[in-house]
Amino acid sequence: MFVPKPIGFVSSPYKNSSEIPKGLHTKHDAEGVLKVLREFELGLTDIEGFSHLYVLWEFDRSDSFELLGSPPFDERPHGVFATRSPRRPNPIGLTVVELLGRNNEELHVRGVDMLDGTPILDIKPYMSSVPVENLRRGWLAEAEERKARMNL
Amino acid sequence: MFVPKPIGFVSSPYKNSSEIPKGLHTKHDAEGVLKVLREFELGLTDIEGFSHLYVLWEFDRSDSFELLGSPPFDERPHGVFATRSPRRPNPIGLTVVELLGRNNEELHVRGVDMLDGTPILDIKPYMSSVPVENLRRGWLAEAEERKARMNL
Repeated sequence: MFVPKPIGFVSSPYKNSSEIPKGLHTKHDAEGVLKVLREFELGLTDIEGFSHLYVLWEFDRSDSFELLGSPPFDERPHGVFATRSPRRPNPIGLTVVELLGRNNEELHVRGVDMLDGTPILDIKPYMSSVPVENLRRGWLAEAEERKARMNL
Repeated sequence: MFVPKPIGFVSSPYKNSSEIPKGLHTKHDAEGVLKVLREFELGLTDIEGFSHLYVLWEFDRSDSFELLGSPPFDERPHGVFATRSPRRPNPIGLTVVELLGRNNEELHVRGVDMLDGTPILDIKPYMSSVPVENLRRGWLAEAEERKARMNL
């Protein structure tokens, strides 16, 4: 397979993972900067026209994987491919961010949930959405319902 | 960085890239199968509850990258990070598929745009959408408008 290389690094307010908001209904509205390496800056041409981007990045502080694990906000274990766990066979993270502006090789974005210094693997334009009414969200929806009932 | 390994392979109707529908307003509704390797099957636990999945995969038949290139449906060049070009610094593809059903280690899905035999790097649950009314789609929207004017 290919040999991954960073195309840049994330500048984020989060210095360690305990600071990253987690749990049901968590809103990720932290601002950060995607600092693309100069040698890849040309690849950002025309990116300003997109409101949202996919960021693929490396969970570089995760050193093994587990196929079954419990998310922080649900005591029940789920398969790694049904969660956003950092402990994945290929430690690749995916985040949708809102593009606030570009300054040469720096993209100012909202919605970062990565640690400061995280290596970026790829950036892609967010071109279309699945309509919310078509989404089913399995165990996540069930955990939200359980929590809502407990809070009644 | 990490060393990527396949967690499975795509079974797709497309044997070469000329068969994959491309262009503006292309609908990807081809059905295919994500065949996860037995050793990773436990990681699929509870995935059935999700209607849509992200699939991360390797452009394994792409052997170099270009920072600026023209998509098949627009004569104007754009930066690689503003397109879905296969010729990326890290040759990772991202596809949203609809999960039709699971049969042990096989996920039957709709919406494949990968070639048959493509190595899968990761599968993640699709948990939320950016509302369509919040999306700006840059050069893609402009190209669609130009095409619509030409067809008037």
